[in-house]
Amino acid sequence: MTKREYAAIEAHMLEQMCDSAHDRRHVYRVLNAALDIARHVDDAVDMDVLLAACLLHDIGRERQFADPGLDHAEIGGEMAREFLLSLGWPAAKAAHVRDCIASHRYRGDNAPQTLEAKILFDADKLDATGALGIVRTLIYCGQVGKPIYVLDENGNIAAHSEDGGKDTPSFIQEYNYKLKNAYESFYTVRAKEIAEMRRQTAVDFYGGLFAEVAENIRGGIANAVFEDE
Amino acid sequence: MTKREYAAIEAHMLEQMCDSAHDRRHVYRVLNAALDIARHVDDAVDMDVLLAACLLHDIGRERQFADPGLDHAEIGGEMAREFLLSLGWPAAKAAHVRDCIASHRYRGDNAPQTLEAKILFDADKLDATGALGIVRTLIYCGQVGKPIYVLDENGNIAAHSEDGGKDTPSFIQEYNYKLKNAYESFYTVRAKEIAEMRRQTAVDFYGGLFAEVAENIRGGIANAVFEDE
Repeated sequence: MTKREYAAIEAHMLEQMCDSAHDRRHVYRVLNAALDIARHVDDAVDMDVLLAACLLHDIGRERQFADPGLDHAEIGGEMAREFLLSLGWPAAKAAHVRDCIASHRYRGDNAPQTLEAKILFDADKLDATGALGIVRTLIYCGQVGKPIYVLDENGNIAAHSEDGGKDTPSFIQEYNYKLKNAYESFYTVRAKEIAEMRRQTAVDFYGGLFAEVAENIRGGIANAVFEDE
Repeated sequence: MTKREYAAIEAHMLEQMCDSAHDRRHVYRVLNAALDIARHVDDAVDMDVLLAACLLHDIGRERQFADPGLDHAEIGGEMAREFLLSLGWPAAKAAHVRDCIASHRYRGDNAPQTLEAKILFDADKLDATGALGIVRTLIYCGQVGKPIYVLDENGNIAAHSEDGGKDTPSFIQEYNYKLKNAYESFYTVRAKEIAEMRRQTAVDFYGGLFAEVAENIRGGIANAVFEDE
């Protein structure tokens, strides 16, 4: 890919994601991680497909936001394909980018098939690991008003969700449901390696947070003795 | 203080802070930390004053939010005093609570004078330390749309604010301006002790986050080689 072509695809991404600085930075992190992974695989990577797929992988988000029944991966893949055709890309290459984007979702049934699709999938999942995974989740909690923790009926921190995870009422529960398990499902050796390098930071931070809150509760009003009436 | 009196003051706090679950949890953490500190000081603590001051210390926030020219500590102190008088508290005790609340702000000129005021000050500052300080700052970043990091003109993570801190455009800069220095200015030995127990979690997490982002940038598009035109 030439620098000029990259700039055209990047400009299209920025246009589609004009409202969210957070989402744009995520896109660049995914792109950067994908380039790192691509340098570490043995088989040849189609860099045109990979770069375009990374830059455009979340352009369907706004449409999904407007209509939650839509899947941003599927719709974004189709949007990307059409855009690349308009740039003069061959049909097969544009379709490959569409397939990469369509299969990048965490819980989709549509698993990635090609090497490029697997690299995009891994690069996207890496952003849920380590300190970055925790930071992104907390930023999201701030956006939607989700609390750091909730207390159960005994006044202790609720660590898991009542329904096993689907609904996570707090950051602490979200960590146990999702972030804790973000280290297992990678396709590439390099992604697994990066995730493992990041893991301890997340584990230590979660442990520290839990201990701080638990200690605060233990020393506090829940165990205070009041005067007689 | 009797349990019934505590419940009346607590109910008033909840009424005043009805819109913010985050702020309410902060109030309980401050209350819990203050009780912990109070158990560790040698001099006698007026527990009525301390409990009321902790519960009510942020009830001026909504008025400050509506009119940023107001100081929530000053106005909240006066609101608390009037409320306690309405409960039949002696004037001197209600005024003492007002003074505690008026002097609890981080950067206020009005430094805490009495033991109870110092305990409230320390308990409030403790919530800016450790994992909790980081979590609260990130939740705030999500609420106001502040990014995790920004890059300087060379594409590196900006670690400090241009103006030395007043305006912190990112979480990374806010950490270096404020959170990093939250371990120094305590009045009580116990608060200093709790802060020190929490410190390493924050230091490690910040270091891990910075390394993850820096490593991601290093391996990525900033150093990629494009094809010739």
